Amino acid sequence: MADYKLAARASHPTDSVVEVKGRKIGGGNFAVIAGPCSVETEEQMLSVARDVKAAGADFLRGGAFKPRTSPYAFSGLGLDGLELLKIASAKSGLPIVTEIMSEEYLDDFARDVDVIQIGARNMQNFTLLRMVGALKKPVLLKRGLSSTIEELLNAVEYILAGGSGDVILCERGIRTYETATRNTLDLSAVPVLKERTHLPIIVDPSHGTGYWELVEPMALAAAAAGADGLIIEVHGHPEAALCDGRQSVTPQIFARLMKKIHRVREAIA
Amino acid sequence: MADYKLAARASHPTDSVVEVKGRKIGGGNFAVIAGPCSVETEEQMLSVARDVKAAGADFLRGGAFKPRTSPYAFSGLGLDGLELLKIASAKSGLPIVTEIMSEEYLDDFARDVDVIQIGARNMQNFTLLRMVGALKKPVLLKRGLSSTIEELLNAVEYILAGGSGDVILCERGIRTYETATRNTLDLSAVPVLKERTHLPIIVDPSHGTGYWELVEPMALAAAAAGADGLIIEVHGHPEAALCDGRQSVTPQIFARLMKKIHRVREAIA
Amino acid sequence: MADYKLAARASHPTDSVVEVKGRKIGGGNFAVIAGPCSVETEEQMLSVARDVKAAGADFLRGGAFKPRTSPYAFSGLGLDGLELLKIASAKSGLPIVTEIMSEEYLDDFARDVDVIQIGARNMQNFTLLRMVGALKKPVLLKRGLSSTIEELLNAVEYILAGGSGDVILCERGIRTYETATRNTLDLSAVPVLKERTHLPIIVDPSHGTGYWELVEPMALAAAAAGADGLIIEVHGHPEAALCDGRQSVTPQIFARLMKKIHRVREAIA
Amino acid sequence: MADYKLAARASHPTDSVVEVKGRKIGGGNFAVIAGPCSVETEEQMLSVARDVKAAGADFLRGGAFKPRTSPYAFSGLGLDGLELLKIASAKSGLPIVTEIMSEEYLDDFARDVDVIQIGARNMQNFTLLRMVGALKKPVLLKRGLSSTIEELLNAVEYILAGGSGDVILCERGIRTYETATRNTLDLSAVPVLKERTHLPIIVDPSHGTGYWELVEPMALAAAAAGADGLIIEVHGHPEAALCDGRQSVTPQIFARLMKKIHRVREAIA
Repeated sequence: MADYKLAARASHPTDSVVEVKGRKIGGGNFAVIAGPCSVETEEQMLSVARDVKAAGADFLRGGAFKPRTSPYAFSGLGLDGLELLKIASAKSGLPIVTEIMSEEYLDDFARDVDVIQIGARNMQNFTLLRMVGALKKPVLLKRGLSSTIEELLNAVEYILAGGSGDVILCERGIRTYETATRNTLDLSAVPVLKERTHLPIIVDPSHGTGYWELVEPMALAAAAAGADGLIIEVHGHPEAALCDGRQSVTPQIFARLMKKIHRVREAIA
Repeated sequence: MADYKLAARASHPTDSVVEVKGRKIGGGNFAVIAGPCSVETEEQMLSVARDVKAAGADFLRGGAFKPRTSPYAFSGLGLDGLELLKIASAKSGLPIVTEIMSEEYLDDFARDVDVIQIGARNMQNFTLLRMVGALKKPVLLKRGLSSTIEELLNAVEYILAGGSGDVILCERGIRTYETATRNTLDLSAVPVLKERTHLPIIVDPSHGTGYWELVEPMALAAAAAGADGLIIEVHGHPEAALCDGRQSVTPQIFARLMKKIHRVREAIA
Repeated sequence: MADYKLAARASHPTDSVVEVKGRKIGGGNFAVIAGPCSVETEEQMLSVARDVKAAGADFLRGGAFKPRTSPYAFSGLGLDGLELLKIASAKSGLPIVTEIMSEEYLDDFARDVDVIQIGARNMQNFTLLRMVGALKKPVLLKRGLSSTIEELLNAVEYILAGGSGDVILCERGIRTYETATRNTLDLSAVPVLKERTHLPIIVDPSHGTGYWELVEPMALAAAAAGADGLIIEVHGHPEAALCDGRQSVTPQIFARLMKKIHRVREAIA
Repeated sequence: MADYKLAARASHPTDSVVEVKGRKIGGGNFAVIAGPCSVETEEQMLSVARDVKAAGADFLRGGAFKPRTSPYAFSGLGLDGLELLKIASAKSGLPIVTEIMSEEYLDDFARDVDVIQIGARNMQNFTLLRMVGALKKPVLLKRGLSSTIEELLNAVEYILAGGSGDVILCERGIRTYETATRNTLDLSAVPVLKERTHLPIIVDPSHGTGYWELVEPMALAAAAAGADGLIIEVHGHPEAALCDGRQSVTPQIFARLMKKIHRVREAIA
């Protein structure tokens, strides 16, 4: 199974650095992606983009297309959501990170999105991996809910073999028997991946835990474990969020967290 | 999360019966789908189709598009594989069950395939679920590697909401810590699903265990647990199979198994 | 890790048969152990012993010492419970199977109990395993909640190395992410264990599923998979049981189940 | 299930501080327990005790009684091992932390051991929990291999109900499907436990990962997540260790790690 080549550390002994509009991730560069679970309104996006930028975030996230367990749940604004992301990105200067769910919108993502995210549920949607790789744009690949680290490395190999060289991996919690958290954040994956691949690795403490109270301690832990960055859900009014409000921090908490993150980064330098 | 409606037993108290070219699954009708992991050659397909038909199989399976962990593994013959399936189906009279991996080939599958399979890795590829549902053809939906029963029922709701009424569910083993088997076949899912949905449920003891020696006992157990059918990998020369030979039974073993299955079905009637 | 010797099939190619007061398990002999989760009253025990015997059970079970997650839950009648088991056994003629939880009562169990059960939570209580083995009495060893099959075989090796030759293994469900059932009954463990060891293997569909409605289908499935027996919780009034009422079948359901079990056993003979 | 009382944060809103011979854990006090997996020789113990003390460790660990999967593996020096621990403790001034495996040696542990450890495999050995609690000595309780956080809190309730007030909890990795690490270290358990209980929580990155290369990043992550301490396996010659050498760090690496730990502790203060 361990037959990935382009992703292997052996094929590229130094750390890869992914650079997007002047922001760098990997090789000693730490970056934070922040924003709401889903794009809701222009006002929401402008406000959150301004807040997370002020706190030091490097990228703006927000879901336009949302994978939802039930067909009857809110599934995002679609292309209208992409438009709102573009407006907020233009005003804030933060590059956009957002998830693609289907081959159907490849052209739109190629044109409008700075970092194309492939979500946990699609980590082994091999057709999508190849097609996104062929766009030769930066990609953020999340580990599947119950994927092994080796499977993640084989999945990223599909993207690299497709042609893209700029891929960021993301640990976002795995499925276990424990129910106190939404998933079990597997932080050991960070040093294990550092050994096996040259690609940058970030951590998602929001999905990884499912509770905003746990985001700060696990974000700090991720930084201490050597992660190259974080992706964090931030919402101006978590209690009114259309999705995942329970795991979203407010801009105030996010700002405090950012300060602590930098201190932890310095401590392990 | 339990907000599926069309799939719910409450919305359809009697068992649904899926009928394909005269074969029925569900509501007391038991059907067996058999064939190789992947379509390799015309000779292979004609031979195995003849053998499994003689042993009493109702459908012919065979992968033309294969989801593989590594991008460098054999990934199927693609559309040429579909052609070979059609030839074997025409000669044997057995309807075709085969997996779709991408929206790209929806038209081909709509035209050529009798039962469109959605594999475990795509169980939450929601775009694909909707699009396949819209074809209004019979669908076989496999449970994801680490999906709960509730997630499976929500996934099938996407297909039903898309327009298809003829969906067969398949338990194929879940991911656990146990390494003695490839997956852990969760046979309790059969009676649990019977309670919650009206749709037929079949079991895949080949992927569920990963070892041909375990296929017979687990196939018998599935029948005893009340499954509506089985999907079993059969290959003329398992040791030379291009994929999953370790879990494929020979036509001889398959024929013996079919006899025992019928005795177990009578025992629980 | 696979360094068990006495338990290995290689060391004893034919099936071991455990014989207790004329009842046999293993080597083609199928036996059913039935009774309540916990011993409550003399009347309860006499009534259930009579009922399960009439339905064809071979052994009487009932917990005198109960392992409970919380220290404040009912933990059994202790030695008084053993006395009630002895009375019910004497009247019904059924040998007693009951769980030991501590070295403290080794003498009592050696004197009064026919088959000493070691529960899932104590499967790797190595001191207890050795001490129970040294009693040279029949033992029923349940698989731990998250033990691998190899760990179960190493655990039984402690008992065999201690001196006992008559050990019955029991699959009782493993811990997974699925919440629709209390545990995930791993029936594949039956044929895997048959390959690796000569010891008899029985299945506990009560703990394995946690719901009485699932006991019958999974008991039939266990028999079809080749199990050498079953252990089933039966209670005259499940709704009033002091523990695990949700997973206990009534004597009426048990009697019906026993008839079907025999038909399935004949079907696979 | 959530019916623990003495362990609940609600019953004791401030953090409990466990104090042993002048060392404190909890309530802002951080402590490190270090030493080899198993006690082997006097020379080994004196040397490692001196080294870990010099690096800043607060307690000396070392297994005299070792729980081993196989009955044929080295299972510790037993009471002779306790003697060697006492000698090393006397010379270094470090209090002893060591595991009890059986009720058999309760008196010896009560007399000679400063902190009695109950291992993961015995977390639900309820008899042992009660008996150790009744000794009214400091206890270190490790989370079971597949125990939920709620089960851990119920297990500690047995000890507290037995009479001991000084219990330290330990996250040591849980069993999941991932095989890249020996267990999956669940660091989210730290902040979750902080919310639910007043007891101190330490982390074991040695067992939690199984590889010495991962000990440093995960130790730093544990500190960043808010743990009250660490337990780390240190061996002078890991390649020659009688058990778990693969996960043992050398005294040199341990000394470097201790410096970084203090910097991370300051960063999150």
